[in-house]
Amino acid sequence: MNNSSRKLILITNDDSVDAPGIHRLAEIVRSMGDVYVVAPAHPHSGQSAAITTCAPLRISELASQLDGVRFFSVDGTPVDCVKLAMHAILPRRPDAVLSGINHGSNASVNIIYSGTMGAVTEGCLQGIPSVGFSLLHHSIKADFSLSVGFVASIAGAVIEEGLSEGVCLNVNIPARVMPQGIKVCRAARARWTDNYRRYLDPSGVPFYLLEGRFINAEPNAEDTDEYWLARRYVTIVPVVPGASANDSIRALSARFDTID
Amino acid sequence: MNNSSRKLILITNDDSVDAPGIHRLAEIVRSMGDVYVVAPAHPHSGQSAAITTCAPLRISELASQLDGVRFFSVDGTPVDCVKLAMHAILPRRPDAVLSGINHGSNASVNIIYSGTMGAVTEGCLQGIPSVGFSLLHHSIKADFSLSVGFVASIAGAVIEEGLSEGVCLNVNIPARVMPQGIKVCRAARARWTDNYRRYLDPSGVPFYLLEGRFINAEPNAEDTDEYWLARRYVTIVPVVPGASANDSIRALSARFDTID
Repeated sequence: MNNSSRKLILITNDDSVDAPGIHRLAEIVRSMGDVYVVAPAHPHSGQSAAITTCAPLRISELASQLDGVRFFSVDGTPVDCVKLAMHAILPRRPDAVLSGINHGSNASVNIIYSGTMGAVTEGCLQGIPSVGFSLLHHSIKADFSLSVGFVASIAGAVIEEGLSEGVCLNVNIPARVMPQGIKVCRAARARWTDNYRRYLDPSGVPFYLLEGRFINAEPNAEDTDEYWLARRYVTIVPVVPGASANDSIRALSARFDTID
Repeated sequence: MNNSSRKLILITNDDSVDAPGIHRLAEIVRSMGDVYVVAPAHPHSGQSAAITTCAPLRISELASQLDGVRFFSVDGTPVDCVKLAMHAILPRRPDAVLSGINHGSNASVNIIYSGTMGAVTEGCLQGIPSVGFSLLHHSIKADFSLSVGFVASIAGAVIEEGLSEGVCLNVNIPARVMPQGIKVCRAARARWTDNYRRYLDPSGVPFYLLEGRFINAEPNAEDTDEYWLARRYVTIVPVVPGASANDSIRALSARFDTID
Protein backbone atom coordinates (compact mmCIF):
# COMPACT_ATOMS: atom_id res chain seq x y z
CA MET A 1 0.00 0.00 0.00
CA ASN A 2 1.60 3.29 -1.01
CA ASN A 3 1.42 6.43 1.02
CA SER A 4 -1.36 8.07 -0.93
CA SER A 5 -3.78 5.19 -0.37
CA ARG A 6 -3.06 4.92 3.33
CA LYS A 7 -5.61 6.50 5.60
CA LEU A 8 -4.64 9.75 7.29
CA ILE A 9 -5.89 10.09 10.86
CA LEU A 10 -5.89 13.33 12.87
CA ILE A 11 -6.06 12.89 16.63
CA THR A 12 -6.72 15.68 19.11
CA ASN A 13 -8.25 16.15 22.56
CA ASP A 14 -8.89 18.78 25.22
CA ASP A 15 -6.78 17.35 28.06
CA SER A 16 -3.56 18.42 26.28
CA VAL A 17 -0.94 16.61 24.23
CA ASP A 18 0.56 15.25 27.46
CA ALA A 19 -2.56 13.38 28.63
CA PRO A 20 -2.35 9.58 28.83
CA GLY A 21 -5.71 9.23 27.04
CA ILE A 22 -4.48 10.75 23.76
CA HIS A 23 -1.39 8.55 23.77
CA ARG A 24 -3.59 5.50 24.27
CA LEU A 25 -5.84 6.54 21.36
CA ALA A 26 -2.82 7.04 19.08
CA GLU A 27 -1.51 3.63 20.06
CA ILE A 28 -4.86 1.97 19.31
CA VAL A 29 -5.24 3.39 15.79
CA ARG A 30 -1.66 3.68 14.56
CA SER A 31 -1.92 0.38 12.64
CA MET A 32 -4.93 1.83 10.77
CA GLY A 33 -3.09 4.57 8.90
CA ASP A 34 -0.73 7.53 9.18
CA VAL A 35 -1.42 9.19 12.51
CA TYR A 36 -0.86 12.84 13.39
CA VAL A 37 -1.51 13.97 16.95
CA VAL A 38 -2.17 17.73 17.05
CA ALA A 39 -3.40 18.72 20.48
CA PRO A 40 -3.51 21.68 22.88
CA ALA A 41 -0.25 22.49 24.65
CA HIS A 42 -2.25 22.93 27.88
CA PRO A 43 -5.53 21.48 29.23
CA HIS A 44 -8.70 22.97 27.68
CA SER A 45 -11.50 21.06 29.35
CA GLY A 46 -14.84 22.86 29.16
CA GLN A 47 -13.75 24.88 26.13
CA SER A 48 -16.62 23.70 23.93
CA ALA A 49 -16.11 24.83 20.30
CA ALA A 50 -14.15 27.94 21.32
CA ILE A 51 -11.77 29.37 18.72
CA THR A 52 -8.86 31.76 19.09
CA THR A 53 -9.65 34.74 16.92
CA CYS A 54 -7.13 37.40 17.87
CA ALA A 55 -4.14 35.77 19.59
CA PRO A 56 -1.23 34.27 17.63
CA LEU A 57 -1.13 30.47 17.49
CA ARG A 58 2.20 28.63 17.55
CA ILE A 59 2.90 25.04 16.52
CA SER A 60 5.61 22.89 18.13
CA GLU A 61 6.60 19.43 16.95
CA LEU A 62 7.39 17.17 19.89
CA ALA A 63 9.57 14.09 20.18
CA SER A 64 7.39 11.12 19.28
CA GLN A 65 6.80 8.47 21.88
CA LEU A 66 5.16 6.09 19.41
CA ASP A 67 6.71 4.71 16.24
CA GLY A 68 5.02 6.09 13.16
CA VAL A 69 3.04 8.77 15.00
CA ARG A 70 3.95 12.46 14.81
CA PHE A 71 3.09 14.71 17.77
CA PHE A 72 2.44 18.46 17.61
CA SER A 73 1.18 20.93 20.17
CA VAL A 74 -0.74 24.14 19.45
CA ASP A 75 -1.14 26.84 22.11
CA GLY A 76 -4.86 27.09 21.47
CA THR A 77 -8.19 25.29 21.81
CA PRO A 78 -9.21 21.87 20.47
CA VAL A 79 -11.00 23.53 17.52
CA ASP A 80 -7.88 25.60 16.79
CA CYS A 81 -5.93 22.32 16.66
CA VAL A 82 -8.22 20.83 14.01
CA LYS A 83 -8.30 24.00 11.90
CA LEU A 84 -4.58 24.69 12.10
CA ALA A 85 -3.64 21.02 11.56
CA MET A 86 -5.61 21.05 8.31
CA HIS A 87 -4.11 24.34 7.22
CA ALA A 88 -0.46 23.99 8.22
CA ILE A 89 0.48 20.52 9.50
CA LEU A 90 -1.23 17.62 7.72
CA PRO A 91 0.15 16.52 4.33
CA ARG A 92 -3.39 16.08 2.97
CA ARG A 93 -7.02 16.11 4.02
CA PRO A 94 -7.54 13.58 6.83
CA ASP A 95 -9.85 10.57 6.49
CA ALA A 96 -10.94 10.87 10.12
CA VAL A 97 -10.75 13.18 13.10
CA LEU A 98 -10.61 11.32 16.43
CA SER A 99 -10.72 13.17 19.73
CA GLY A 100 -9.84 11.81 23.17
CA ILE A 101 -9.70 9.52 24.88
CA ASN A 102 -11.06 12.09 27.30
CA HIS A 103 -10.45 11.71 31.00
CA GLY A 104 -14.07 12.07 32.12
CA SER A 105 -17.63 11.74 30.78
CA ASN A 106 -18.93 13.72 27.84
CA ALA A 107 -22.30 12.00 27.89
CA SER A 108 -25.65 13.79 27.95
CA VAL A 109 -25.47 17.57 28.28
CA ASN A 110 -21.69 17.50 28.79
CA ILE A 111 -21.33 17.47 25.03
CA ILE A 112 -22.22 21.18 25.05
CA TYR A 113 -19.24 22.22 27.19
CA SER A 114 -16.81 19.55 26.01
CA GLY A 115 -13.65 20.61 24.21
CA THR A 116 -13.23 17.00 23.11
CA MET A 117 -16.53 17.25 21.27
CA GLY A 118 -15.76 20.81 20.08
CA ALA A 119 -12.93 19.33 18.02
CA VAL A 120 -15.28 16.62 16.71
CA THR A 121 -17.79 19.29 15.74
CA GLU A 122 -15.11 21.09 13.74
CA GLY A 123 -14.04 17.92 11.92
CA CYS A 124 -17.68 17.24 11.08
CA LEU A 125 -18.26 20.77 9.76
CA GLN A 126 -15.24 20.25 7.51
CA GLY A 127 -16.93 17.13 6.10
CA ILE A 128 -14.58 14.63 7.76
CA PRO A 129 -15.84 11.53 9.64
CA SER A 130 -15.28 12.52 13.27
CA VAL A 131 -15.63 10.73 16.60
CA GLY A 132 -15.00 11.70 20.21
CA PHE A 133 -14.08 9.07 22.82
CA SER A 134 -14.47 9.65 26.56
CA LEU A 135 -13.89 7.38 29.54
CA LEU A 136 -16.05 7.95 32.61
CA HIS A 137 -13.07 8.57 34.88
CA HIS A 138 -11.60 12.02 35.50
CA SER A 139 -8.27 10.98 36.93
CA ILE A 140 -5.05 11.54 35.04
CA LYS A 141 -4.30 7.98 36.18
CA ALA A 142 -7.50 6.53 34.66
CA ASP A 143 -7.13 2.97 33.39
CA PHE A 144 -7.98 2.80 29.66
CA SER A 145 -7.10 -0.87 29.19
CA LEU A 146 -10.66 -2.25 29.20
CA SER A 147 -11.73 0.31 26.59
CA VAL A 148 -9.17 -0.64 23.96
CA GLY A 149 -11.18 -3.21 22.01
CA PHE A 150 -14.23 -0.95 21.82
CA VAL A 151 -12.27 2.10 20.73
CA ALA A 152 -10.48 0.02 18.10
CA SER A 153 -13.68 -1.39 16.64
CA ILE A 154 -15.55 1.92 16.49
CA ALA A 155 -12.57 3.93 15.22
CA GLY A 156 -11.70 1.22 12.69
CA ALA A 157 -15.24 1.16 11.28
CA VAL A 158 -15.38 4.94 10.97
CA ILE A 159 -11.92 5.22 9.41
CA GLU A 160 -12.70 2.52 6.84
CA GLU A 161 -16.36 3.20 6.08
CA GLY A 162 -16.91 6.83 7.09
CA LEU A 163 -20.11 8.39 8.45
CA SER A 164 -23.11 10.09 6.88
CA GLU A 165 -22.33 13.67 5.85
CA GLY A 166 -22.98 16.09 8.68
CA VAL A 167 -23.22 13.46 11.45
CA CYS A 168 -20.49 12.89 14.05
CA LEU A 169 -20.33 10.53 17.02
CA ASN A 170 -20.00 11.03 20.77
CA VAL A 171 -18.70 7.77 22.29
CA ASN A 172 -18.65 7.30 26.07
CA ILE A 173 -17.13 4.34 27.87
CA PRO A 174 -17.83 3.07 31.38
CA ALA A 175 -14.79 3.02 33.65
CA ARG A 176 -13.39 0.30 35.91
CA VAL A 177 -15.48 -2.48 34.32
CA MET A 178 -15.38 -4.53 31.14
CA PRO A 179 -18.18 -2.99 29.04
CA GLN A 180 -21.07 -5.31 28.20
CA GLY A 181 -21.34 -4.11 24.60
CA ILE A 182 -22.18 -1.08 22.47
CA LYS A 183 -25.47 0.83 22.30
CA VAL A 184 -26.37 3.65 19.89
CA CYS A 185 -28.74 6.02 21.65
CA ARG A 186 -29.63 9.67 22.25
CA ALA A 187 -28.24 12.07 24.84
CA ALA A 188 -30.19 12.11 28.10
CA ARG A 189 -31.80 15.46 28.97
CA ALA A 190 -29.95 16.78 31.97
CA ARG A 191 -28.38 19.87 33.48
CA TRP A 192 -25.74 20.92 35.96
CA THR A 193 -26.86 22.79 39.04
CA ASP A 194 -25.43 26.30 39.26
CA ASN A 195 -23.27 25.68 42.26
CA TYR A 196 -20.17 27.67 43.02
CA ARG A 197 -18.00 27.60 46.08
CA ARG A 198 -17.37 31.06 47.50
CA TYR A 199 -13.94 31.99 48.87
CA LEU A 200 -12.39 35.17 50.21
CA ASP A 201 -9.00 36.23 48.88
CA PRO A 202 -6.40 37.68 51.30
CA SER A 203 -7.90 41.15 50.76
CA GLY A 204 -11.38 39.93 51.68
CA VAL A 205 -12.66 40.05 48.10
CA PRO A 206 -14.88 37.09 47.18
CA PHE A 207 -14.16 34.76 44.29
CA TYR A 208 -15.97 31.69 43.05
CA LEU A 209 -15.05 28.24 41.79
CA LEU A 210 -17.47 26.04 39.85
CA GLU A 211 -18.72 22.88 41.55
CA GLY A 212 -21.92 21.89 39.78
CA ARG A 213 -23.88 18.70 40.36
CA PHE A 214 -25.23 16.66 37.43
CA ILE A 215 -29.00 16.15 37.35
CA ASN A 216 -30.38 13.60 34.89
CA ALA A 217 -33.91 14.71 34.01
CA GLU A 218 -34.90 11.30 32.66
CA PRO A 219 -33.02 8.56 34.55
CA ASN A 220 -35.42 5.83 33.41
CA ALA A 221 -35.45 6.63 29.68
CA GLU A 222 -34.22 3.45 27.97
CA ASP A 223 -33.12 5.20 24.79
CA THR A 224 -30.53 7.47 26.48
CA ASP A 225 -26.79 7.35 26.97
CA GLU A 226 -26.90 7.75 30.76
CA TYR A 227 -29.25 4.77 31.01
CA TRP A 228 -26.89 2.46 29.09
CA LEU A 229 -23.71 3.78 30.66
CA ALA A 230 -25.17 2.93 34.06
CA ARG A 231 -25.67 -0.60 32.70
CA ARG A 232 -22.01 -0.83 31.64
CA TYR A 233 -22.51 -0.31 27.90
CA VAL A 234 -20.34 1.81 25.63
CA THR A 235 -22.71 4.43 24.20
CA ILE A 236 -22.63 6.08 20.77
CA VAL A 237 -24.69 9.26 20.35
CA PRO A 238 -24.97 10.69 16.81
CA VAL A 239 -24.91 14.49 16.61
CA VAL A 240 -25.57 17.03 13.85
CA PRO A 241 -23.60 20.11 14.99
CA GLY A 242 -25.55 23.36 14.91
CA ALA A 243 -28.75 21.75 13.69
CA SER A 244 -31.82 23.94 13.84
CA ALA A 245 -34.92 22.80 15.71
CA ASN A 246 -36.92 22.08 12.56
CA ASP A 247 -39.92 20.81 14.54
CA SER A 248 -40.34 24.27 16.04
CA ILE A 249 -40.20 26.33 12.86
CA ARG A 250 -43.87 26.07 11.93
CA ALA A 251 -45.23 27.14 15.32
CA LEU A 252 -42.72 29.96 15.67
CA SER A 253 -43.43 31.13 12.12
CA ALA A 254 -47.08 31.54 13.03
CA ARG A 255 -46.02 33.62 16.02
CA PHE A 256 -43.30 35.83 14.56
CA ASP A 257 -43.22 35.84 10.75
CA THR A 258 -44.19 39.02 8.98
CA ILE A 259 -44.16 37.27 5.60
CA ASP A 260 -46.04 34.20 4.30
CA MET B 1 -47.27 46.05 40.02
CA ASN B 2 -45.16 44.94 42.97
CA ASN B 3 -41.59 43.74 42.70
CA SER B 4 -42.33 40.04 42.85
CA SER B 5 -44.65 40.11 39.84
CA ARG B 6 -42.29 42.16 37.72
CA LYS B 7 -40.32 40.23 35.14
CA LEU B 8 -36.64 39.68 35.86
CA ILE B 9 -34.42 39.91 32.79
CA LEU B 10 -30.79 38.78 32.65
CA ILE B 11 -28.74 40.32 29.85
CA THR B 12 -25.30 39.14 28.79
CA ASN B 13 -23.12 39.04 25.67
CA ASP B 14 -19.67 38.03 24.46
CA ASP B 15 -18.37 41.44 23.37
CA SER B 16 -17.93 42.51 27.03
CA VAL B 17 -19.89 44.68 29.41
CA ASP B 18 -18.45 47.77 27.69
CA ALA B 19 -19.82 47.01 24.22
CA PRO B 20 -22.40 49.44 22.82
CA GLY B 21 -24.63 46.54 21.73
CA ILE B 22 -25.33 45.34 25.27
CA HIS B 23 -26.15 48.85 26.44
CA ARG B 24 -28.58 49.21 23.56
CA LEU B 25 -30.26 45.90 24.45
CA ALA B 26 -30.61 46.95 28.11
CA GLU B 27 -32.11 50.26 27.02
CA ILE B 28 -34.64 48.52 24.76
CA VAL B 29 -35.96 46.10 27.41
CA ARG B 30 -35.65 48.07 30.63
CA SER B 31 -39.31 49.07 30.52
CA MET B 32 -40.23 45.36 30.37
CA GLY B 33 -38.97 44.40 33.83
CA ASP B 34 -36.07 44.51 36.27
CA VAL B 35 -32.91 44.30 34.22
CA TYR B 36 -29.56 42.90 35.34
CA VAL B 37 -26.62 43.11 32.95
CA VAL B 38 -24.00 40.48 33.87
CA ALA B 39 -21.38 40.30 31.14
CA PRO B 40 -17.73 39.39 30.57
CA ALA B 41 -15.20 41.94 31.76
CA HIS B 42 -13.31 41.43 28.49
CA PRO B 43 -14.32 40.39 24.95
CA HIS B 44 -15.01 36.67 24.50
CA SER B 45 -16.01 36.35 20.87
CA GLY B 46 -15.66 32.83 19.53
CA GLN B 47 -15.88 31.31 23.01
CA SER B 48 -18.86 29.10 22.20
CA ALA B 49 -20.23 27.46 25.37
CA ALA B 50 -16.84 27.47 27.11
CA ILE B 51 -16.88 27.40 30.91
CA THR B 52 -14.19 28.27 33.42
CA THR B 53 -13.62 25.16 35.49
CA CYS B 54 -10.43 25.81 37.45
CA ALA B 55 -9.79 29.56 37.59
CA PRO B 56 -11.40 31.80 40.22
CA LEU B 57 -14.22 34.04 38.97
CA ARG B 58 -14.68 37.53 40.36
CA ILE B 59 -17.77 39.73 40.18
CA SER B 60 -17.62 43.54 40.03
CA GLU B 61 -20.63 45.82 40.18
CA LEU B 62 -20.19 48.79 37.87
CA ALA B 63 -21.70 52.26 37.93
CA SER B 64 -24.98 52.07 36.04
CA GLN B 65 -25.39 54.15 32.94
CA LEU B 66 -29.10 53.40 32.64
CA ASP B 67 -31.76 54.16 35.25
CA GLY B 68 -33.13 51.00 36.76
CA VAL B 69 -30.50 48.70 35.25
CA ARG B 70 -27.71 47.15 37.33
CA PHE B 71 -24.41 46.32 35.64
CA PHE B 72 -21.95 43.61 36.72
CA SER B 73 -18.84 42.22 35.11
CA VAL B 74 -17.44 38.70 35.55
CA ASP B 75 -13.89 37.85 34.51
CA GLY B 76 -15.06 34.74 32.66
CA THR B 77 -16.96 33.49 29.62
CA PRO B 78 -20.55 34.24 28.59
CA VAL B 79 -21.69 30.88 30.03
CA ASP B 80 -19.88 31.67 33.30
CA CYS B 81 -21.85 34.95 33.42
CA VAL B 82 -25.21 33.16 33.17
CA LYS B 83 -24.28 30.49 35.72
CA LEU B 84 -22.73 32.87 38.22
CA ALA B 85 -25.48 35.46 37.82
CA MET B 86 -28.06 32.82 38.74
CA HIS B 87 -25.99 31.60 41.68
CA ALA B 88 -24.69 34.80 43.21
CA ILE B 89 -26.16 37.98 41.67
CA LEU B 90 -29.83 37.76 40.69
CA PRO B 91 -32.45 38.13 43.43
CA ARG B 92 -34.51 35.31 41.92
CA ARG B 93 -34.72 33.02 38.89
CA PRO B 94 -34.89 35.18 35.73
CA ASP B 95 -37.85 35.13 33.36
CA ALA B 96 -35.61 35.52 30.32
CA VAL B 97 -31.96 35.43 29.31
CA LEU B 98 -31.16 37.85 26.48
CA SER B 99 -27.70 37.91 24.88
CA GLY B 100 -26.28 40.62 22.64
CA ILE B 101 -26.81 42.69 20.72
CA ASN B 102 -23.73 41.10 19.20
CA HIS B 103 -21.49 43.16 16.96
CA GLY B 104 -21.42 40.74 14.01
CA SER B 105 -23.40 37.86 12.50
CA ASN B 106 -24.17 34.66 14.37
CA ALA B 107 -26.23 33.25 11.53
CA SER B 108 -25.74 29.80 10.01
CA VAL B 109 -22.74 27.86 11.31
CA ASN B 110 -21.51 30.83 13.36
CA ILE B 111 -23.85 29.70 16.10
CA ILE B 112 -21.36 26.92 16.92
CA TYR B 113 -18.50 29.27 17.76
CA SER B 114 -20.58 32.14 19.14
CA GLY B 115 -20.16 33.14 22.76
CA THR B 116 -23.39 35.13 22.43
CA MET B 117 -25.22 31.92 21.64
CA GLY B 118 -23.21 29.96 24.24
CA ALA B 119 -24.89 32.11 26.89
CA VAL B 120 -28.27 31.49 25.26
CA THR B 121 -27.60 27.75 25.29
CA GLU B 122 -26.90 27.92 29.02
CA GLY B 123 -30.10 29.85 29.73
CA CYS B 124 -32.06 27.30 27.72
CA LEU B 125 -30.48 24.34 29.55
CA GLN B 126 -31.55 26.00 32.81
CA GLY B 127 -35.12 26.05 31.49
CA ILE B 128 -35.29 29.81 30.97
CA PRO B 129 -36.65 31.40 27.76
CA SER B 130 -33.46 32.58 26.05
CA VAL B 131 -32.71 34.61 22.92
CA GLY B 132 -29.53 35.84 21.27
CA PHE B 133 -29.54 39.00 19.13
CA SER B 134 -26.83 39.78 16.58
CA LEU B 135 -26.42 42.64 14.13
CA LEU B 136 -24.58 41.86 10.88
CA HIS B 137 -21.93 44.51 11.50
CA HIS B 138 -18.67 43.79 13.33
CA SER B 139 -17.68 47.36 14.11
CA ILE B 140 -17.69 48.67 17.64
CA LYS B 141 -19.36 51.69 16.03
CA ALA B 142 -22.16 49.64 14.47
CA ASP B 143 -25.47 51.50 14.22
CA PHE B 144 -28.18 49.60 16.11
CA SER B 145 -30.93 52.19 15.63
CA LEU B 146 -32.81 50.43 12.84
CA SER B 147 -32.90 47.19 14.84
CA VAL B 148 -34.63 48.62 17.91
CA GLY B 149 -38.24 47.91 16.96
CA PHE B 150 -37.50 44.34 15.96
CA VAL B 151 -35.49 43.57 19.08
CA ALA B 152 -38.23 45.10 21.23
CA SER B 153 -41.00 43.07 19.63
CA ILE B 154 -39.16 39.73 19.77
CA ALA B 155 -37.77 40.26 23.27
CA GLY B 156 -41.13 41.49 24.52
CA ALA B 157 -42.97 38.46 23.18
CA VAL B 158 -40.46 36.04 24.70
CA ILE B 159 -40.41 37.82 28.07
CA GLU B 160 -44.21 37.86 28.28
CA GLU B 161 -45.10 34.52 26.70
CA GLY B 162 -41.96 32.39 27.01
CA LEU B 163 -40.76 29.69 24.64
CA SER B 164 -41.28 25.94 24.39
CA GLU B 165 -39.15 24.05 26.91
CA GLY B 166 -35.74 23.23 25.50
CA VAL B 167 -35.93 25.60 22.52
CA CYS B 168 -34.00 28.87 22.30
CA LEU B 169 -33.77 31.47 19.54
CA ASN B 170 -30.91 32.81 17.43
CA VAL B 171 -31.98 36.20 16.03
CA ASN B 172 -29.89 37.92 13.35
CA ILE B 173 -30.51 41.40 12.03
CA PRO B 174 -29.36 42.95 8.74
CA ALA B 175 -27.17 46.03 9.16
CA ARG B 176 -27.35 49.46 7.56
CA VAL B 177 -30.91 48.96 6.23
CA MET B 178 -34.41 49.04 7.64
CA PRO B 179 -35.34 45.33 7.85
CA GLN B 180 -38.30 44.26 5.69
CA GLY B 181 -39.80 42.05 8.38
CA ILE B 182 -39.17 38.89 10.39
CA LYS B 183 -38.71 35.33 9.10
CA VAL B 184 -38.43 32.15 11.19
CA CYS B 185 -36.16 29.71 9.36
CA ARG B 186 -33.37 27.16 9.74
CA ALA B 187 -29.63 27.76 9.79
CA ALA B 188 -27.99 27.54 6.36
CA ARG B 189 -25.42 24.75 6.00
CA ALA B 190 -22.06 26.44 5.65
CA ARG B 191 -18.47 26.33 6.81
CA TRP B 192 -15.45 28.55 7.25
CA THR B 193 -12.40 27.83 5.15
CA ASP B 194 -9.35 26.90 7.25
CA ASN B 195 -7.33 29.94 6.38
CA TYR B 196 -4.63 31.33 8.60
CA ARG B 197 -2.19 34.11 7.89
CA ARG B 198 1.38 33.07 8.63
CA TYR B 199 3.81 35.54 10.26
CA LEU B 200 7.36 35.33 11.55
CA ASP B 201 8.12 36.66 15.02
CA PRO B 202 11.37 38.60 15.65
CA SER B 203 13.17 35.29 16.33
CA GLY B 204 12.04 33.85 13.01
CA VAL B 205 9.50 31.51 14.61
CA PRO B 206 6.21 31.29 12.68
CA PHE B 207 2.85 32.07 14.21
CA TYR B 208 -0.64 32.06 12.74
CA LEU B 209 -3.74 34.26 12.90
CA LEU B 210 -7.16 33.03 11.83
CA GLU B 211 -8.69 34.59 8.72
CA GLY B 212 -11.35 32.19 7.49
CA ARG B 213 -13.78 32.85 4.67
CA PHE B 214 -17.48 31.95 5.01
CA ILE B 215 -18.82 29.49 2.43
CA ASN B 216 -22.61 29.07 2.26
CA ALA B 217 -23.25 25.52 0.99
CA GLU B 218 -26.83 26.29 -0.02
CA PRO B 219 -27.15 29.94 -1.10
CA ASN B 220 -30.46 29.37 -2.89
CA ALA B 221 -32.27 27.50 -0.11
CA GLU B 222 -35.36 29.57 0.64
CA ASP B 223 -35.84 28.17 4.14
CA THR B 224 -32.47 29.37 5.50
CA ASP B 225 -31.32 32.33 7.54
CA GLU B 226 -28.62 33.43 5.09
CA TYR B 227 -31.22 33.57 2.29
CA TRP B 228 -33.53 35.87 4.25
CA LEU B 229 -30.78 38.02 5.73
CA ALA B 230 -29.58 38.73 2.18
CA ARG B 231 -33.14 39.89 1.46
CA ARG B 232 -33.07 42.26 4.45
CA TYR B 233 -35.20 40.21 6.83
CA VAL B 234 -34.58 39.72 10.53
CA THR B 235 -34.19 35.95 10.94
CA ILE B 236 -35.16 33.77 13.91
CA VAL B 237 -33.65 30.27 14.04
CA PRO B 238 -34.94 27.93 16.77
CA VAL B 239 -32.30 25.70 18.34
CA VAL B 240 -32.39 22.72 20.73
CA PRO B 241 -28.93 22.79 22.36
CA GLY B 242 -27.10 19.47 22.37
CA ALA B 243 -29.86 17.62 20.54
CA SER B 244 -28.95 14.17 19.28
CA ALA B 245 -29.36 13.29 15.61
CA ASN B 246 -32.40 11.09 16.17
CA ASP B 247 -32.78 10.39 12.44
CA SER B 248 -29.43 8.62 12.46
CA ILE B 249 -29.95 6.35 15.45
CA ARG B 250 -31.66 3.49 13.63
CA ALA B 251 -29.04 3.14 10.88
CA LEU B 252 -26.15 3.46 13.32
CA SER B 253 -27.76 0.96 15.68
CA ALA B 254 -27.77 -1.60 12.88
CA ARG B 255 -24.09 -0.93 12.35
CA PHE B 256 -22.75 -0.76 15.89
CA ASP B 257 -25.16 -2.13 18.50
CA THR B 258 -24.24 -5.32 20.26
CA ILE B 259 -27.67 -5.53 21.91
CA ASP B 260 -31.20 -5.61 20.41
